[in-house]
Amino acid sequence: MRETLGLIGFGAFGRLTARHLSPGFDILAHDPAASDDEGLATLTDLATAAACPTVVLAVPVEALEATLIAIGPLLRPDALVIDVGSVKVKPTQAMDALLPPGVQIVGTHPLFGPQSGKDGIAGLRIAVCKVRGARDARRVAAFCRRALRLKVFQVSPEDHDREAATVQGLTHLIARVLMAMEPLPTRMTTASFDRLMQAVDMVRHDSPAVFRAIERDNPFAAEVRERFFALAGEARGAIGDDRTG
Amino acid sequence: MRETLGLIGFGAFGRLTARHLSPGFDILAHDPAASDDEGLATLTDLATAAACPTVVLAVPVEALEATLIAIGPLLRPDALVIDVGSVKVKPTQAMDALLPPGVQIVGTHPLFGPQSGKDGIAGLRIAVCKVRGARDARRVAAFCRRALRLKVFQVSPEDHDREAATVQGLTHLIARVLMAMEPLPTRMTTASFDRLMQAVDMVRHDSPAVFRAIERDNPFAAEVRERFFALAGEARGAIGDDRTG
Repeated sequence: MRETLGLIGFGAFGRLTARHLSPGFDILAHDPAASDDEGLATLTDLATAAACPTVVLAVPVEALEATLIAIGPLLRPDALVIDVGSVKVKPTQAMDALLPPGVQIVGTHPLFGPQSGKDGIAGLRIAVCKVRGARDARRVAAFCRRALRLKVFQVSPEDHDREAATVQGLTHLIARVLMAMEPLPTRMTTASFDRLMQAVDMVRHDSPAVFRAIERDNPFAAEVRERFFALAGEARGAIGDDRTG
Repeated sequence: MRETLGLIGFGAFGRLTARHLSPGFDILAHDPAASDDEGLATLTDLATAAACPTVVLAVPVEALEATLIAIGPLLRPDALVIDVGSVKVKPTQAMDALLPPGVQIVGTHPLFGPQSGKDGIAGLRIAVCKVRGARDARRVAAFCRRALRLKVFQVSPEDHDREAATVQGLTHLIARVLMAMEPLPTRMTTASFDRLMQAVDMVRHDSPAVFRAIERDNPFAAEVRERFFALAGEARGAIGDDRTG
């Protein structure tokens, strides 16, 4: 029998996780909102999922704390707990503060989603943050590299969030504004505009919780956002000056 | 001997034009700022270039009126004049108002540039606007379709500018703001962010004159821009509300 892996959260990203981990693990997934396992996992209760040697938390960042409190007493003393949230400073702090002392903890952020990963994830990127147990972080990084063929970046939660504030903060902010302007032209488009809309399409179906995590739970997001708005204001002013100049 | 084609303006777009038209025409190009014909054309004086049966105007939109006044007396009575500017309402009006009565006029906007067209232009798009001579507009459209293998959209100048105000106005505005934020991350990027930066890279080297034409000489650009800024402001407010909520 293969090793079991507990998956807490079986939403869009939980399913993507199950698709790529099911070749190597028997996945026991828990999600009160899920009714169909899609053949990728066995849906089960929280206690059963949390009792696996490895437990992956694929819940919204805003639901993480409640999840940690719920699973704490259900984990094996030597469990390995891994999260997959879009931000890393707050989740890694919460895991370190709320999980029992013997439990090993690794933070990850797969830099892709159901849309950008729909044709396979080989060659895509993942950030891996050591929290408790340097050996486990290296083991997770090696697994991502070898079994999943991802590009792995081992970074601190702070370094991750600083970079993600720009990468994801700007992408989601621009996508949100462009989506509010729809319908947009689809006929006489340029290659550049097509790329812009491809960027939008990749995050279009991300949940509002993902948007909130990126814009609100990343401690560096507000600063990046304000810089974007300030420079947008300058560009607007410059075009106005041109008009009268 | 092959038919000659006069090319007024031998900047980045003029050279791209020469690259794709030189297999079919002997190109006589005029540009006081150009010193090297790159083997694509013969650099010559304005009168010689303007005396060709077909004359392509690849000058900045803001220099078009002066160019039209200069070439008017130099054109053949039955010349065909074609512009390639990024906006169409103002240039087509100017050509109709300033060129001699017998001259045929077609407005075009190749929806690509030196960057997006660097690996070939087959399959890319061009807008063609009839100004004087429906037959010539159809002939230009057919040439673009058959000889250059472009996707051709025959539209009115107004319809073109309304759509381009969004397609190009938004792309260049967003690119300008993102370029002002550089250096941007290149390491832990997402596929969506990569697409966004590809969009930026395609317009990064466009001249300030192209940016001015798109943002200032398109009668619909200001409206689109203001809508973008208003919706960006709303998104900013919504994220702020989330924070305190």
